[in-house]
Amino acid sequence: MMIRTLSTLECTNMLMASRTGHLACAKDGQPYVVPFNYAYADSHLYAFSLLGKKIDWMRENPLVCAQVQERTQGRGWRSVIVEGRYEELPDRVGHKVLRDHAWAVLSKHTDWWEPGALKPVAPPVSDSLPHVFFRILVEQVSGREATE
Amino acid sequence: MMIRTLSTLECTNMLMASRTGHLACAKDGQPYVVPFNYAYADSHLYAFSLLGKKIDWMRENPLVCAQVQERTQGRGWRSVIVEGRYEELPDRVGHKVLRDHAWAVLSKHTDWWEPGALKPVAPPVSDSLPHVFFRILVEQVSGREATE
Repeated sequence: MMIRTLSTLECTNMLMASRTGHLACAKDGQPYVVPFNYAYADSHLYAFSLLGKKIDWMRENPLVCAQVQERTQGRGWRSVIVEGRYEELPDRVGHKVLRDHAWAVLSKHTDWWEPGALKPVAPPVSDSLPHVFFRILVEQVSGREATE
Repeated sequence: MMIRTLSTLECTNMLMASRTGHLACAKDGQPYVVPFNYAYADSHLYAFSLLGKKIDWMRENPLVCAQVQERTQGRGWRSVIVEGRYEELPDRVGHKVLRDHAWAVLSKHTDWWEPGALKPVAPPVSDSLPHVFFRILVEQVSGREATE
């Protein structure tokens, strides 16, 4: 396998093309990582989540890391890592356009993974649950690609 | 989708069955997450890595989080999250059996993802590079399953 570093443009293109990744936050030195769905726009990753550990921790410490990966030909792969900052977008008039856009983009994508919308309660009615809308400001981005 | 909590036994079984996941560490409140290959044995995730940011950070702060996921039928999925502690296993006689076992298990698995073995240098000759051998002690484990 040959490994090369991706340019910032290549990283950004990959963030734009993808909808799923992993999001890590930290509290008192303990990291926590979960999968998440997002939509990229203007140097931010937009996402929704129910209230819970992840939101609690990011409210307390906004420093986060997101990682997005994809397979390429054969055993090849690409991976992008974002260091960023959590920003909550309250349900106010000023955020309505952004929220509607992100929601539309994310709900169009019928992904297997819906961690942001569901909690282990039965029956979960995701539409009726209050979602926290947030974004991650991409402060640093780096990436690698492996080809056979 | 219906979500349920996995038992500790179910979580452990999934950790045993899988070989890839995401590993998060943290330094000064900043988390960092990367994909990794591992082999589970006796409440530990065994893994190799080249020296770099991840190892530097885990040496400084051994608190880590690992996440492993798999798809199930349809849009179903399972996800397990481990809170654990980094332990480096130096290349000494006492660790030889463990190291050989973990290396054998991990190299048998022809995974698309080889972050631990390769760095962006050309040409990377992974066999000749010194690998750090480490394990994550599983201190807490939790998991969820979604079924349609």
